[in-house]
Amino acid sequence: MNTESPIGIFDSGIGGLTVVKAIQAALPFERLIYFGDTARVPYGPKSQITIRKYAADDTAILMRHQPKMIIVACNTVSALALDVVEKSCGNIPVIGVLKSGASLAVQMTKNNHIGVIGTQATVCSNAYAYAINTLNPDIAVVSQACPLFVPLAEEGFINHPATKLIAEHYLADFRKANIDTLVLGCTHYPILRQVIGETIGSDIRIIDSAEAVALRTSELLSESGMLNRSHTTSVPHLLVSDLPQKFSKLYQLFMGSEQPDVDLVEV
Amino acid sequence: MNTESPIGIFDSGIGGLTVVKAIQAALPFERLIYFGDTARVPYGPKSQITIRKYAADDTAILMRHQPKMIIVACNTVSALALDVVEKSCGNIPVIGVLKSGASLAVQMTKNNHIGVIGTQATVCSNAYAYAINTLNPDIAVVSQACPLFVPLAEEGFINHPATKLIAEHYLADFRKANIDTLVLGCTHYPILRQVIGETIGSDIRIIDSAEAVALRTSELLSESGMLNRSHTTSVPHLLVSDLPQKFSKLYQLFMGSEQPDVDLVEV
Repeated sequence: MNTESPIGIFDSGIGGLTVVKAIQAALPFERLIYFGDTARVPYGPKSQITIRKYAADDTAILMRHQPKMIIVACNTVSALALDVVEKSCGNIPVIGVLKSGASLAVQMTKNNHIGVIGTQATVCSNAYAYAINTLNPDIAVVSQACPLFVPLAEEGFINHPATKLIAEHYLADFRKANIDTLVLGCTHYPILRQVIGETIGSDIRIIDSAEAVALRTSELLSESGMLNRSHTTSVPHLLVSDLPQKFSKLYQLFMGSEQPDVDLVEV
Repeated sequence: MNTESPIGIFDSGIGGLTVVKAIQAALPFERLIYFGDTARVPYGPKSQITIRKYAADDTAILMRHQPKMIIVACNTVSALALDVVEKSCGNIPVIGVLKSGASLAVQMTKNNHIGVIGTQATVCSNAYAYAINTLNPDIAVVSQACPLFVPLAEEGFINHPATKLIAEHYLADFRKANIDTLVLGCTHYPILRQVIGETIGSDIRIIDSAEAVALRTSELLSESGMLNRSHTTSVPHLLVSDLPQKFSKLYQLFMGSEQPDVDLVEV
């Protein structure tokens, strides 16, 4: 393991590609290896015991490639099983989208009222509120599960009137809650950032967890002298546990570029 | 294995409970054992090789309970892996929702134009059109994938205006296609039967695959003298591969009654 070792990133499916894209933008010379557990997606509605087992499996798959750090791009695993990832990967640093997003939101809020949207499991775990209040116990956190946002994003219903109606349904209560900052606590949600922004209002700052984790990764590699010093760029190395029929279309939706080769791994 | 042996039913998740409900209504004295592969749901977007592996696993789980027949309540498995189920269960009869729905639609259509809605995998497999045209090659079949209907049903967006807009989006082309019969080719869709019916128009007959499979089961057990002759009713024996947080709420949504005890099986 050295500065040229890859950064390992995993998610329950392809949503974590928003994290890959944010890290590519912030750190173009890093080698990235991404595992998407497309055979077992989604993790959100599953039980904690199952999610913790999957987190250990996912970490083991990335560890075979000797990464210099691991990024948990899955909010559900960040919320319920970050300790499992830390235990499974020895001494290398682990960054979860959740703590990164929570920390950036705490820095940004001015009125100490933060909203969080995510999957049912992330919201029920209360992990964002816990992470935010660990940093600042005076902040009020209001959370809302938006389970239809993932299928709407994946089906490309980005600008559809139905998506606007569903966004209004989910986000209505935030208007009364006086928040000035909203955390997108699911890696799919950046795809719907525009409709979420229009619905919530332009006076509320939106925190994209993918951008927050890229910022934190950059800081951490810098501080530890582990930035890749070779000035070459490479396409991310993609691993998936199943190759869904829509994979290529979804890759295009998330990354805005053609899908590279993909390796299939068994889970 | 005798007349009192259970009927084994499986699905990728809890959608197959619509089949359980239809069979309970048609055959109240049969013992039912249901396996929902809730840890690996949904099958729809997955590759054929993965779906075939899961079909073998699901059959093996039911075979431990020595059923007198197996019902494949999963349209995706019916479309892509019915032969795997037949090979894995020896001599007992296998009924798939797909052939039952196709067969009932063929009996019902008067103008020989049938519409089919289902998951991406079911529609892409072209299995409904194949099953319908095997019975009658003169029937025109028009298919449409409606991938958002499953999450909308599961989230309880039954009468929401967004669901109506999405139904209009998916079903618009059927108006031009001159169909007189529409097959609900996914076990979740009966939950949205009202909005689908309102959108498609009252002159189009809707075929619920769950009701079709119950009818076919009744005929088959009758013909083979395998109807259960004991006049006692029992709650279905439920097996799942994961106990999702929403299970109890979903059971209520699908069955209209309180959830009984559930056994967890490893896949």
